[in-house]
Amino acid sequence: MRLALLASAAVVAVAAASSASAEEGMWTFDNFPVARANQTLRTNIDQAFLDRVRLSSVKFGGCSAGVVSGQGLVMTNNHCVATCVANLSTPQVNYAETGFLPKSREEELKCPGATAEILTDISDVTERMHKAGEGLEGQAFTQARDAEAGRIESEACGNDPKIRCQVVSLYRGGQFKLYKYRKYSDVRLAWAPEDRAATFGGDLDNFSFPRFAVDAAFIRLYEDGKPVETPTHFAWNPNKPTEGEAVFISGNPGSTQRLLTQDQLTTIRDVVLPLDQLIASELRGRLIRYSEEGEEQAFIAMDPIVGLENTYKRGRGRMAALIDPAFMARKAEQEADFRARAAASGVDPWSALSAVQPVARELYPSMALLEGGTGLGTTSVAGGSQLFSYARTLVRGAQERAKPSDQRLPEFADSRLSGVESRLFAERPIYPELEQIRLEWWLSKTREWLTVDNPSVRTLLGKESPEGLSARLVAGTTLADPAVRRALWTGGLAAVQASTDPMIQYALAIDADARAVRDAWETRVQAPTDRASEQLAAARFAAYGDAVYPDATGTLRLTYGQVEGSDVPGQRFAAFTTFAGLWDRATGAEPFAVAPKLLAAKDRIDPNAVMDMAVSTDTIGGSSGSPAINAKGEIIGANFDSTVLTQRNAYGYDRAVNRSVIVTTQAVTVALRDVYGMDHLVRELGVSQDRER
Amino acid sequence: MRLALLASAAVVAVAAASSASAEEGMWTFDNFPVARANQTLRTNIDQAFLDRVRLSSVKFGGCSAGVVSGQGLVMTNNHCVATCVANLSTPQVNYAETGFLPKSREEELKCPGATAEILTDISDVTERMHKAGEGLEGQAFTQARDAEAGRIESEACGNDPKIRCQVVSLYRGGQFKLYKYRKYSDVRLAWAPEDRAATFGGDLDNFSFPRFAVDAAFIRLYEDGKPVETPTHFAWNPNKPTEGEAVFISGNPGSTQRLLTQDQLTTIRDVVLPLDQLIASELRGRLIRYSEEGEEQAFIAMDPIVGLENTYKRGRGRMAALIDPAFMARKAEQEADFRARAAASGVDPWSALSAVQPVARELYPSMALLEGGTGLGTTSVAGGSQLFSYARTLVRGAQERAKPSDQRLPEFADSRLSGVESRLFAERPIYPELEQIRLEWWLSKTREWLTVDNPSVRTLLGKESPEGLSARLVAGTTLADPAVRRALWTGGLAAVQASTDPMIQYALAIDADARAVRDAWETRVQAPTDRASEQLAAARFAAYGDAVYPDATGTLRLTYGQVEGSDVPGQRFAAFTTFAGLWDRATGAEPFAVAPKLLAAKDRIDPNAVMDMAVSTDTIGGSSGSPAINAKGEIIGANFDSTVLTQRNAYGYDRAVNRSVIVTTQAVTVALRDVYGMDHLVRELGVSQDRER
Repeated sequence: MRLALLASAAVVAVAAASSASAEEGMWTFDNFPVARANQTLRTNIDQAFLDRVRLSSVKFGGCSAGVVSGQGLVMTNNHCVATCVANLSTPQVNYAETGFLPKSREEELKCPGATAEILTDISDVTERMHKAGEGLEGQAFTQARDAEAGRIESEACGNDPKIRCQVVSLYRGGQFKLYKYRKYSDVRLAWAPEDRAATFGGDLDNFSFPRFAVDAAFIRLYEDGKPVETPTHFAWNPNKPTEGEAVFISGNPGSTQRLLTQDQLTTIRDVVLPLDQLIASELRGRLIRYSEEGEEQAFIAMDPIVGLENTYKRGRGRMAALIDPAFMARKAEQEADFRARAAASGVDPWSALSAVQPVARELYPSMALLEGGTGLGTTSVAGGSQLFSYARTLVRGAQERAKPSDQRLPEFADSRLSGVESRLFAERPIYPELEQIRLEWWLSKTREWLTVDNPSVRTLLGKESPEGLSARLVAGTTLADPAVRRALWTGGLAAVQASTDPMIQYALAIDADARAVRDAWETRVQAPTDRASEQLAAARFAAYGDAVYPDATGTLRLTYGQVEGSDVPGQRFAAFTTFAGLWDRATGAEPFAVAPKLLAAKDRIDPNAVMDMAVSTDTIGGSSGSPAINAKGEIIGANFDSTVLTQRNAYGYDRAVNRSVIVTTQAVTVALRDVYGMDHLVRELGVSQDRER
Repeated sequence: MRLALLASAAVVAVAAASSASAEEGMWTFDNFPVARANQTLRTNIDQAFLDRVRLSSVKFGGCSAGVVSGQGLVMTNNHCVATCVANLSTPQVNYAETGFLPKSREEELKCPGATAEILTDISDVTERMHKAGEGLEGQAFTQARDAEAGRIESEACGNDPKIRCQVVSLYRGGQFKLYKYRKYSDVRLAWAPEDRAATFGGDLDNFSFPRFAVDAAFIRLYEDGKPVETPTHFAWNPNKPTEGEAVFISGNPGSTQRLLTQDQLTTIRDVVLPLDQLIASELRGRLIRYSEEGEEQAFIAMDPIVGLENTYKRGRGRMAALIDPAFMARKAEQEADFRARAAASGVDPWSALSAVQPVARELYPSMALLEGGTGLGTTSVAGGSQLFSYARTLVRGAQERAKPSDQRLPEFADSRLSGVESRLFAERPIYPELEQIRLEWWLSKTREWLTVDNPSVRTLLGKESPEGLSARLVAGTTLADPAVRRALWTGGLAAVQASTDPMIQYALAIDADARAVRDAWETRVQAPTDRASEQLAAARFAAYGDAVYPDATGTLRLTYGQVEGSDVPGQRFAAFTTFAGLWDRATGAEPFAVAPKLLAAKDRIDPNAVMDMAVSTDTIGGSSGSPAINAKGEIIGANFDSTVLTQRNAYGYDRAVNRSVIVTTQAVTVALRDVYGMDHLVRELGVSQDRER
C-alpha cells in the first residue's frame, strides 16, 4: 500500500515536471506538440493538417465554429446562436420554439451585431511588449503595455474593417503574439433546430453525460450581400464515430487559471466564486418567478435564464474542484515541485502574489460590481443591463475618443473602435421589464455587498431605492433605439453631456467612482499580478521548457484526445448516446419532453444513430461549437459541453474525469435530413439524401 | 516588532489554556463564574442574584424574554412576535403596519401556537445517559441515548401540561442535565410597535451598529384566562445607561460550534454554508419578485423574507469568519494547544472526527434536503412549507405512536407529544401561493443538488415537474384546516393511511427515502461524532478544568460584559445611538423611512434619549429578546442583534469585535409613553407618566 502510494506520487511529480499529461493542453497552433500527439493517438498529422484546420476554424462571438462547405456555411452550437434566434423572434414568431428553417439561402436572416473571424497570421511581439513595460510599476506599467498593444494593432491592421488585429498575452505575460483575423460582419442564420431538441434535459442535463441533445446550428458568412467563398473547409463526415478513435478539437477556449498559485486559487475559492454565485442565485430566483408570471414573461426570461444557469452550474463545478482535497493536493505538489526548481533563480513571484491577495480580496466586490472586468469572476456591472451598457459605452467612448489613442482606456484604442461601434449600433430587441429586474437586482446587491454607508453606494443610489431608481431609468431612456445611440456616438462628448436621457445622465454620474475603483484595482492588483506572472512564466520556461502550454485566453487552440466513456465514481457512462436512448429518457414533462418536430420524425430516424459522444479532449467554455475533427481532417462533430466534474479544468486537466461532450455530424445529418427537411443544406454538405440504416 | 508578535502569541496561548477570555462564555446558571465576573466588572453579584435572574428569564419559542411586572408582563423583541403579529393580521387589518396597541388587558390577543417557559430546576443525569450508550456503536448508540432521555423526561414530568422536562446535552455529550420548565401555553400579545419602528434600516442595517430600532414588544402570560402572577420579576429601569457599565444578559442562545475541530469547521465552510446560502439566495429572489406582484403578495412575503434575509446575512458573517486567515489561525493554535495537552491520554478523537468528514460531506445535501435537522446547517425539508410540515408530523406521529415510547423517533417520545400537539393544532393562516413557491423551490433545488437520476429524486418527483407537483399538492390539500389535522392526529395510522389528501399521500410516499437517509446520517455521521465529541469533552475537562463552558444549545445561559463602542477597521462606532440620530439617518425612502406614528411623535421625544446600545456580551441567535440587566438586577434593555463581524461568535468569541446590540428600556419607555400612548403599561411598569428631559 505504502509503495503504491509512493509510486503514484512519483507519477504526479513527472506530470508536474513535464507540466502536461498525455492529452493535456490547449495548445497554440504555432507550438502544437505534433510528435507527441501522433505518438499518443497513433495518428500521422503534419503542418499542412494544422494549417487546414486553422483556416477552417471560426471564432464566433464567445463561441467557436467550423467552415463546412465552399459557400461559407459554418457549423456551431445551437446555444451559440440562441441570442441571435431570440433577437430574430417575437412571442408570435418564436424560432426557438419552431426551429429556424429557411427553405433556401434567400431566407437566411442576419444575426444582429454578430461577427465571425478566421485566424490568418500569428507573429511574435514579446520583445516590444516587454520593453514597453520595462522599469515601470503600478498603473504606469499597465497603461504603457496597453498603449503599446494598441499601437501594434493599429500598425498591423490600420482601419481595414475586414481585418482585426489583437495582441494576445500568453503564459500570463510570458509571451505576446499578434493575432491577425479575417473578419466577417454579415453573419446569417442558416439553420437552427427547435430549441428543445438542442436543450433536451435543460439545466439538469447541462454539464453531464449521457446526453441527448442536437446542440448544433448553421450560420453562413456573407460579404457584399453574397455568401463568402471558402475553398478551405472541413469535409463533412456523416458516419458513426468509433470508440477510441482520435479526435482533434479546434476552438477558442475562453479562460483557464492553471498557472495561478495556491494563494490566488484561495482568493477565488473564498471571495470570487462565493460573491458571483450567491448573487447570481438570487437573480435566478427573480427571473424564474418573473418567467412564471405569463407567457410573454416566459419568452423574455428564457434566454437570460439559460445563460445564467449555465454560468452558475459551471461555478459549482469549479467550486467542487477547489474544495476537493485530492485535487488541491495535486495542485500543491505541482507548485512545490516548481518552486523547488525555481529556487535557485533568486526571484520569488509567489511571495509577490501572496502579498496581492489581501488587496484583491478587499477590492474584488467593488471592482466586480462597479466596473466589471476583473478577469477573475463573472459578476459584471449593472447586472448585465443592455441599456446601461450602451450608456456606459457612449459616455466613456465620448470621453476617451477625445484623447490620443495610446492614452485611452485600452478598450477604446483606435484598433478596437470598429468592434465597439458594431456592437453599439446593432439592432436588437430590448425588454424593459428584464432591464428593470437586472438593474434593481444589481443596485440592491451592490448596496448589500459594499454596505449602505459606502460612499460609492451613496453615489449610486442617492436618496432613491433600487426599485424606484431602476424603474425611473428604464422608463425614461430612449437608448433602445439604435438611431439614438448612433446620434450620441457621432455627437461625441458635447452630445453626451447635453443629453437629458436619464440612463446617460446616470452613467455620467457614477463614472468617476467606477473609474476610481478600476484605477485602484489596476494599480494595486492587476499591475503587481502581471509583473509577478511574467516572472513566473520565465521561471516556468526555465524549469519545463517548451512542454508548457499557455492558459486559455479566448484565442484559437488545438487540443486532442479519444472517443471514450468514463468509469469514475459519480460519473460512469459509455462513449456514445443514440436516438433510442433519447426516446427512453423522455418523460413528456419539461425539460424531458422531446421537441415536437423531432418527436414526429421518430419513425424516420435510425434508433442506433449516434447523437452525442464523450471525448477526453481538454476543452472549456468558449470551446462551444468547436469542430471535432478526425485524423483525416474531416469534421465529425461539434463540441457543446463537458461534464460538471470537468469544470476543474479551469485549474488543471484531470485525465480520469475530463470529458468533452460532442454532438456528432451523424446526429446533425439525421436532424437536417430526417427531421427538418433541410434538403439544400444536405446537398451542400455532399450527403446522400437516402437514409443509411 | 518581533517581540510584540511573540507577546501576542503568548496571550493567545493563555486564552486557549484557560479556554475563555475575560468576558467570554455563555455560561449555564449552575456553573457561572461569579468571582471572575465580579472581578472583571467590579460588581458584587451573588447566588441570590443568579436565582432571581433565572426565574425572571423566559424562553419564548426560538427567542428569549424577561418578566417585567407582577402580572405576567414579559418584554421581548418585536421580531420575536413578528410571526404572531402576522398570524393575527390580514391585509386589511395589518398590525405590522399600525402596531398592535390594545387599550387594556382585555384587548390583548392570543398568539397562535405560542408557548413560554421559565427554567425552575437543573439536575445532573450524566451518569444515566453515559451508561445508556456504553458499549454501543452506530445507530444503536444514538437510539439508546435518545430512549434514555425520553425515559428521564417522562419520569420527571409525567403528563403534566404545565411542566416540560428536557434532557440537555452539554459539552457535546460531556455532560447531560435535566432541565425542568414551568410552561405557559396561553401567551398573548400586549404591545407591538409599528414594524418599521422596530426594523428601521431593514436588512441593510440588520447585524450592524449604529442602529436606530425600537425592536421591542410585550407579551403576557395567561393561565385559566387570567394573567399569571409573577412576584419574581425584573424591576424596570427607564433611565439612560452609562458607558462602561456592567451588563448581564440572560437568554437562550441557540447554537454555537466552538468546540468543533478544524476539520469539522472545514466541512461547514466547504459544504454546509455554500449549499444553505446558495439555495436560500434563490428563494430570496423568488420571494422578492413575488412580493412585487401586488400589495397582497407584499403582505404575504414580508415575514418570510425578513426571516430568510436574517438567516442569510448571519451565514455571510459566519463564512467571513471561516475565510479570515487571522481568526482561523487562532482557532488552529487553540486546537494545537489542546491536542498537545491531550496527547498523553492516548485517545485521539480528532482522527475519528476527521474520518467522519468525507461522509458528512457526501451525505449533507440529501440529509438536509430530504430530512432536515442535520444540526449543522439551516436547510430544511420541503423549503419550510407549513402544509408539508403538518403532513409529515401527522404521518410520522401516527407511525411512531404505534410503538413504545423508547423505540420511537425521539421527537415523538411521550415526553414531547404535548409540544407536538400544540404546534399541530394551533390556528394560523396559510397562504397557498407562498406554500407553492416554497415547495416548487425545494423540489427544484433538491433535484439540482442530488441530480436528476438520484433514486430519491425519482421518488420525489416521479414523472411530474416541481411546478406541477407543488401546484397539485397545495391546491388539493385540506390540511390548512386545524380540524382536519386534529381528526387525522386522533385517527392515528388508519386514518392517515386512508386519507386521500394529496399532501398526506405525498408525505407517506417519500417517507421511506427520508428515513433511510436519516438512518445513514445517524449511523455514519451523528453517532461517531457524538462518541468522539464525548471523548473530546472529557479531554477538555482534563486539560482546562471548570474554566470551560459548553456550546450553546438553545437553553438558558448567562453572559456578561460592558456597554462599549468599537474601534476596529470596518466597525467603528460609539456605545449609544439616540433618537436624534434616527431623525438624521432617515431619508424617507424604504427601508430608511421612519414609521408614521413614531415620526408624528418627534416633537414629544427627547432627542437625547438613548435608543440602542452596544455591549461586549457573548450572545448569538436565540439570545434575541434576552433581558439586559444591570448589577442591581434591574432590566435596562433587550438584546436584539449583534454586528455582522460578531457572527464569528458561532466559532469563537473575539473580544475586539464582539458586540451585542440592545434596545434600551429608555427607548421602550419613550415608545410606550410618548409615541403609542400605552398608559396602562407605563403604569404597570411603575414609570412616571411625565417625560424627563
